[in-house]
Amino acid sequence: MSTVTSQKPHDRLAQALSNEMAAVSALIRERMASEHAPRIPEVTAHLVEAGGKRLRPMLTLAAAKLCGYTGPYHIHLATTVEFIHTATLLHDDVVDESSQRRGRPTANLLWDNQSSVLVGDYLFARSFQLMTEPGSMPVMRILSNAAATIAEGEVLQLTAAQNLATTEQVYLQVVRGKTAALFSAATEVGGVIADAPEDHVRALFDYGDALGIAFQIVDDLLDYQGDTSATGKNIGDDFRERKLTLPVIKAIALADDEERAFWVRTIEKGKQTEGDLEHALTLLNKHGTLKATQADALAWAEKAKSALAPLPAHEIKDMLIDIADYVVSRLT
Amino acid sequence: MSTVTSQKPHDRLAQALSNEMAAVSALIRERMASEHAPRIPEVTAHLVEAGGKRLRPMLTLAAAKLCGYTGPYHIHLATTVEFIHTATLLHDDVVDESSQRRGRPTANLLWDNQSSVLVGDYLFARSFQLMTEPGSMPVMRILSNAAATIAEGEVLQLTAAQNLATTEQVYLQVVRGKTAALFSAATEVGGVIADAPEDHVRALFDYGDALGIAFQIVDDLLDYQGDTSATGKNIGDDFRERKLTLPVIKAIALADDEERAFWVRTIEKGKQTEGDLEHALTLLNKHGTLKATQADALAWAEKAKSALAPLPAHEIKDMLIDIADYVVSRLT
Repeated sequence: MSTVTSQKPHDRLAQALSNEMAAVSALIRERMASEHAPRIPEVTAHLVEAGGKRLRPMLTLAAAKLCGYTGPYHIHLATTVEFIHTATLLHDDVVDESSQRRGRPTANLLWDNQSSVLVGDYLFARSFQLMTEPGSMPVMRILSNAAATIAEGEVLQLTAAQNLATTEQVYLQVVRGKTAALFSAATEVGGVIADAPEDHVRALFDYGDALGIAFQIVDDLLDYQGDTSATGKNIGDDFRERKLTLPVIKAIALADDEERAFWVRTIEKGKQTEGDLEHALTLLNKHGTLKATQADALAWAEKAKSALAPLPAHEIKDMLIDIADYVVSRLT
Repeated sequence: MSTVTSQKPHDRLAQALSNEMAAVSALIRERMASEHAPRIPEVTAHLVEAGGKRLRPMLTLAAAKLCGYTGPYHIHLATTVEFIHTATLLHDDVVDESSQRRGRPTANLLWDNQSSVLVGDYLFARSFQLMTEPGSMPVMRILSNAAATIAEGEVLQLTAAQNLATTEQVYLQVVRGKTAALFSAATEVGGVIADAPEDHVRALFDYGDALGIAFQIVDDLLDYQGDTSATGKNIGDDFRERKLTLPVIKAIALADDEERAFWVRTIEKGKQTEGDLEHALTLLNKHGTLKATQADALAWAEKAKSALAPLPAHEIKDMLIDIADYVVSRLT
């Protein structure tokens, strides 16, 4: 960490951007409303009140500020990014048949899958309305491309699930799609709306891309070694849902015949019995793949930090560097 | 019908726009592809091959041609409209738990709900990429507003379902959202991209709005009195799914106590037994609500036709008038 303080990097950034974040909150509330369909604000309020760190919109605001933007439209873009994120959460919970999100029951459980699908569609449409308002063609291209890449990544994840042939390369493609595409679009549009020079915009994109990948790898790793009380997730959810994440992909690549048979039974065929999660953890530790995955996450965080090199010295730049450290600090 | 020919109005319009429709088909094929996720073109090809009349993109092409447009972008806008339509079909089938669409098994049945949700999202995102390409702010506003209105209408339909207090006004709001919003956006953007004068654009919007309403009322009516072999729908699907459509709303408004108890049991409580559909049809006929609904559909078709008055004489204008007649001709 480059500054000595007891505050978390995320909170420091939120403080530096507190006026802008308040404007984003107000715009979220305004635009998630619906005159005709009261079910919509019910569902969205449930998600919005549950909070979440709002890391993605904060990245847009930070990038715009770092590039000296003085106009009003970073608020719209940050809100767009949060709406795309919220829409994908609603649809993800339907796809994954999840029952918990941010420590609360999911919308598909409280209402029904129908409401989650349709309110997600509404937020997608609202995000597209919002992104047109600054009137910037490059911004619209970046954000609509990101939305397509996210959906593509989710579909790829669906078809890769339970497939033991999934490589680290496919995993990276899925992660770039489902997670990093929105991080990199969030930072890139902050630079673009500020009319930053091309190499600064590129640096912001690269930072968001690497940060998003580090973020997702950490998330996948915490599913095997996290502290439930801190993460709000249960250990082994991905294993039970037969998702092929990096620690398992690495362990399968190193498996002998007997181990391979174990992965075929538990992940490919989904025939899991008591003690299987513990055995899976034993295999991950035996081959050191939790450690290797952690090293990958740290390397992506370093990549994120060094991507910012072309940008001038700035208080916000230091905070973005700290955010990259913070994202992987959840591991240690 | 204003011309004497054995061809259906829809086919005549398709013939007049055959080059443009071929370009739309090519663009649909190009943009529904995905480099990374082969599941996407599988699902979309299933829908696209099933055909459908492509009435909505044809309306965009017709409006642009009628307003003298000579540029290339009506093709992008027509494709956008078709992608939005296809995405909503995919999500509707998940929401309605449908098993048949255009006489074939639905995507949610052939693959799974997950694929339908995510491929729908992909098509939404693709449609937003497409709508940015002409670089017209008004066009983007119209189409992104339409997408939000559609989702709003679908959510409103969800909460109005099974609610006997649903009025004709709420029904019209649902129909304007879920169906007419895309029809009116389709015709409006055709005029806007052609830089047509404001009153012509307004006329095209009004035509699309009234046509869409007529179209949906006819659809709802055919669910009670259609010829299964011609419509590909089963009589009584809406009754079994407890949807409050216009003939039933009108019959409930005229119901005596005993009849009201019947609607409470079958629609509100969903306790249906053999003979209930037949009894429902008896009540609709007794109160003349099928005839009254048909009169409403015809009135909306007339409204669509007279909306076109401000537009100059043109072969395409005559065809659009015939289309309005054709939409309600399915009833007679």
